[in-house]
Amino acid sequence: MEPVAVAIDAMGGDHAPAVVVKGVMEFLSKNPDTRIYLVGKKREIRRELRRLSVSGMEDRLSVVNAHDQISMREQLLSYWRKRERTSIQQALELVRKGTAQAMISAGNTGAVMALAKNNLGMLEGIGRPALATLIPTAKGKTMLMDVGANVDSRPRHLVEFALMGKVFMQTVHGVSNPRIALMSIGEEEGKGNELIKRTYGILKSMDINFVGNIEGREAYLGESDLIVTDGFTGNITLKVAEGVVDVMMALIQSETRSSLQSRLGVFLLKRSLRRLRRRLDYAEIGGALLLGVNGIVVIGHGRSNAKAVASAIDLSVRMIRERVEERIASEIRGMRNILEELSYA
Amino acid sequence: MEPVAVAIDAMGGDHAPAVVVKGVMEFLSKNPDTRIYLVGKKREIRRELRRLSVSGMEDRLSVVNAHDQISMREQLLSYWRKRERTSIQQALELVRKGTAQAMISAGNTGAVMALAKNNLGMLEGIGRPALATLIPTAKGKTMLMDVGANVDSRPRHLVEFALMGKVFMQTVHGVSNPRIALMSIGEEEGKGNELIKRTYGILKSMDINFVGNIEGREAYLGESDLIVTDGFTGNITLKVAEGVVDVMMALIQSETRSSLQSRLGVFLLKRSLRRLRRRLDYAEIGGALLLGVNGIVVIGHGRSNAKAVASAIDLSVRMIRERVEERIASEIRGMRNILEELSYA
Repeated sequence: MEPVAVAIDAMGGDHAPAVVVKGVMEFLSKNPDTRIYLVGKKREIRRELRRLSVSGMEDRLSVVNAHDQISMREQLLSYWRKRERTSIQQALELVRKGTAQAMISAGNTGAVMALAKNNLGMLEGIGRPALATLIPTAKGKTMLMDVGANVDSRPRHLVEFALMGKVFMQTVHGVSNPRIALMSIGEEEGKGNELIKRTYGILKSMDINFVGNIEGREAYLGESDLIVTDGFTGNITLKVAEGVVDVMMALIQSETRSSLQSRLGVFLLKRSLRRLRRRLDYAEIGGALLLGVNGIVVIGHGRSNAKAVASAIDLSVRMIRERVEERIASEIRGMRNILEELSYA
Repeated sequence: MEPVAVAIDAMGGDHAPAVVVKGVMEFLSKNPDTRIYLVGKKREIRRELRRLSVSGMEDRLSVVNAHDQISMREQLLSYWRKRERTSIQQALELVRKGTAQAMISAGNTGAVMALAKNNLGMLEGIGRPALATLIPTAKGKTMLMDVGANVDSRPRHLVEFALMGKVFMQTVHGVSNPRIALMSIGEEEGKGNELIKRTYGILKSMDINFVGNIEGREAYLGESDLIVTDGFTGNITLKVAEGVVDVMMALIQSETRSSLQSRLGVFLLKRSLRRLRRRLDYAEIGGALLLGVNGIVVIGHGRSNAKAVASAIDLSVRMIRERVEERIASEIRGMRNILEELSYA
């Protein structure tokens, strides 16, 4: 296979750079055709590489120094003040210059989104970047987008999300004709807020596999391949699901502490529960995608472990090989007639 | 205790009138000071009463005939066409005339909301009714409102939700100074959509225990007593939580079918899992409340069983005894100065 290159923000995430470096090594050991640029504090990265006693990877691994980093808690203003030398900024720069074809960060999501838009620019015909992620369902996985890049959206934005997500599911997940649903509070046309009602009419008129509104409960049944929503609702959907899983796990723990009989049960169930937890773990999916910018950007969960980092690299490589962006641009061009009638106002 | 009277739509819910009648009998057998009006098809109700061989309840149980009913699937238009003789309408009529002090239905939520608003009218100073429910958290229960009565809200509506929910938590749940949070996609002030940003500023300025924004994940940790949200977001929150619980239960089942070892574990865990399921079951809570109308209205889940019906009656009786509405009206009067500055536009 043709070699590809990925730039990784080594300083992003709660356990950086240790888990990032470990994840990169895990990935490289299994994938000979990929070159990785580890971007961050050189000395810290080198220390981790020594700790893992890595050798024989020199030709596929470069360390790029960035002496500043953006913390997880920093607010928007500070990105700009010191943007030139942060690891996020430098990693994006490698993509902009064409040295790498994708950028990954498990750092401050807001910073990655803002800097990616500013540095890479937008794909032609797309108004705003959108954050997409896969949610686990009873039948597999469904893409949910936007999950937080846009708080107040117009119908045109949602239509763009639908087209971008469609291409992603087709190319990376091999779903030939993705079923596209609109998140709402009732299945029938006309149910939902103004944004949903207007978007419904547009999606219905388009040459896509639009399956109508879907409710929050049905979203997890796996009856659609892509669920379109505004970033406010999408982000809350994602976070509520995480919260419910956490509460259930805690309740299972506390319930099972209450009797010896149950404790024995839990002991025996442990392997199953661990498997289950992995299926429900968002970090397993490899991160969220920032679609719509002019370059492939994958945003990992702040709590990413090495395996999640490796999954994120794997995802970005698949996106490069499937030429996802090129195909999104072509999809948008094909729908130009419809999109041009929709304003962002 | 002073006797109270509750009117119940006997035809509401998936298993009406059987489970409704059963739930009523369960409640009456334990609560001597309550009179129940069972409203619906007289013949069907009497048949259920005979089946349960009820006797000695005649002085506390009346059957009110309503020869029509609104199905769960019916759309808005049809309510009006036949409103006079439906069980929902007749039950509301008993409240309007003062024969009963509360009305309960596990029927078509949209119909109950629309007819309640139309028949009972609104409490003075409240713009729209709101649907409130309790969600289970790691520490107990938190009220979430609105969960679907309003799809597009203005800041004033959310402020009204906060005041109504506050009174409910104080009176019915004995929380002296309820912690009120605003559902958003970031904790800091300024995070969220336009509606949330504007509402944040108003709630902050009021003499209430406003604890700021809360994210979807934290909502289930139990760090607040009341979470205020628009009906679109609230409804999706509720449904997503249900969907995630369903998927987890299904995954636990399928995971544990996979090995004999796990099966033994599940057998031993069964009692614990059943208890857990009950804690997470929304029907247990007794239903959602329609706050803001001029009368106590409790809306049960369509899938309510007899126990859920009994819980709903219990909830409505507590609301009557605590004079929740009177206190909401007084709270609203006390905040008149602030509310009058906020338009609904």
